[in-house]
Amino acid sequence: MSLVVVGSVAYDGVETPHGKVDRMLGGACTYISLAASYFTHVKIVAVVGDDFEQKDRDLLAARDIDLAGMESVPGGKTFFWAGVYSPDMNDRTTLQTDLNVFADFAPKLPDHYRDLPYLLLGNIQPALQGSVRRQMTKPRFIGGDTMNYWINDFRGELLETIAHWNVLLINDGEARLLSGEHNLSKAAKKIRQMGPQVVIIKRGEYGAMLFHEHGHFAVPGYLLDTVFDPTGAGDCFAGGFMGYLAEQGVDPNSGKADPKVLGRAVVYGSVMGSFCCERFGVDRFRDLTRKDIDKRFEEFRSFTSF
Amino acid sequence: MSLVVVGSVAYDGVETPHGKVDRMLGGACTYISLAASYFTHVKIVAVVGDDFEQKDRDLLAARDIDLAGMESVPGGKTFFWAGVYSPDMNDRTTLQTDLNVFADFAPKLPDHYRDLPYLLLGNIQPALQGSVRRQMTKPRFIGGDTMNYWINDFRGELLETIAHWNVLLINDGEARLLSGEHNLSKAAKKIRQMGPQVVIIKRGEYGAMLFHEHGHFAVPGYLLDTVFDPTGAGDCFAGGFMGYLAEQGVDPNSGKADPKVLGRAVVYGSVMGSFCCERFGVDRFRDLTRKDIDKRFEEFRSFTSF
Repeated sequence: MSLVVVGSVAYDGVETPHGKVDRMLGGACTYISLAASYFTHVKIVAVVGDDFEQKDRDLLAARDIDLAGMESVPGGKTFFWAGVYSPDMNDRTTLQTDLNVFADFAPKLPDHYRDLPYLLLGNIQPALQGSVRRQMTKPRFIGGDTMNYWINDFRGELLETIAHWNVLLINDGEARLLSGEHNLSKAAKKIRQMGPQVVIIKRGEYGAMLFHEHGHFAVPGYLLDTVFDPTGAGDCFAGGFMGYLAEQGVDPNSGKADPKVLGRAVVYGSVMGSFCCERFGVDRFRDLTRKDIDKRFEEFRSFTSF
Repeated sequence: MSLVVVGSVAYDGVETPHGKVDRMLGGACTYISLAASYFTHVKIVAVVGDDFEQKDRDLLAARDIDLAGMESVPGGKTFFWAGVYSPDMNDRTTLQTDLNVFADFAPKLPDHYRDLPYLLLGNIQPALQGSVRRQMTKPRFIGGDTMNYWINDFRGELLETIAHWNVLLINDGEARLLSGEHNLSKAAKKIRQMGPQVVIIKRGEYGAMLFHEHGHFAVPGYLLDTVFDPTGAGDCFAGGFMGYLAEQGVDPNSGKADPKVLGRAVVYGSVMGSFCCERFGVDRFRDLTRKDIDKRFEEFRSFTSF
């Protein structure tokens, strides 16, 4: 079943201890869509400038991603972000953020997107996330991401928006900020009371946890010998999770998924996040296959079974 | 099969956000022994002063722990430590350390300890760990713990000592310090080259990883609604791990265990560490049963299976 993804398509400049790239394809929507495209058909909603390169458009199209909703602004420049990672890669410093055409992003869904069942709202202003949701006629399952900035400065707007979501994907620091609870079990409980029946807490190298009405699921992180570039790993997690869920399907009436399917979706999310870190930017997705993905999924099973 | 445990038996003063106790039974050897006693027969090697209370001796004896190797120094005072935890409990500040009789600890094994197969060396000076090992006639499987202080200031002595161990239990920061590698996969590989065929990296609330010749195993941490007091959790992990291994047995010739048994031992270690945090000091062990333990083990299976 098709998945609509909204978020940023960008150019990134990234420096890690393993190298430096001045300008390459990036953005949450890009990473989410590439990761999800291994599981389901993806249609994106985004905005770029007329500096957006054909080769980048081709990369997305090669994964059968529908670009009808990617608006190109004549004379505009694509969102640009640059950052540098700390030696242990647990922190990063933003060096440059040029919103460019993204500053006036007013997402508009093509007609053939509106009846689709799955929607993933990347980390953008909560009001825009709400506007996209309202353009859909009958979304069956809505997932979304957010960040500290919206939690702190747009709290009311954010709470109004996430009240309509089926799953919120968030990292541990953001979960604590949103809920006011340090303990993650209590934090997830409070967030579930805000609307989403499922809460996923991403913990970077430590793995991820999923909370739902029947309990929780946890998976440790994948151990890479070398993390080349963690940019986009969280978005790839979201793409893998929602992609697998769209592939397997949720109950059309309740929007609920089998807890086992949710657990496997978290593992597929972790698999996609781990692949993302193996090369710079989106490079790993240039030759990654579903076979590679399923092999790593089984590797997760092997190092977590007892 | 019996397990010999050496380490500190102490009185602790502990303050956490959930309360404050001025003086209670503590010490690595105490926590290890209590946790291991649910799986195997434990014999301890330690030193106390004549202020050591009968009720504390009784608690250990009630778990069938052999105290023949616990020397009592007439006129001496038992090791005392006091500390306070940060609000999120991820850090603690030591307020007082009175080594007392522990300053002159020269572990001496009773004769009936020497032929036993399993040995767990708690975190004490590496030379003393070596002395205990040499007093054993034919240990089949040796595990040990260490800390930053010995890694930094007694490195040669420590390397000489751990070269004879089958398993090193260490936390992530210590593993990085000992190996000089930030990446835990590389760190474990380097540490395995120092002698121990098995390396366990404890990650506190994030769980634990085990590395052996055939690969690795990882388990997420147990999610407690409230952590009352994390003191001793790492030692209880070690006790649960080694106790289960002693219960299941390793190969008498190679000292090797089945990888599945090693994985389950890590989970039992995690179970014991989680119980430890539920009350102050050793209080959880006053009424904990093996049935409770096996129930939580199955809970781990349930929240990690997919």
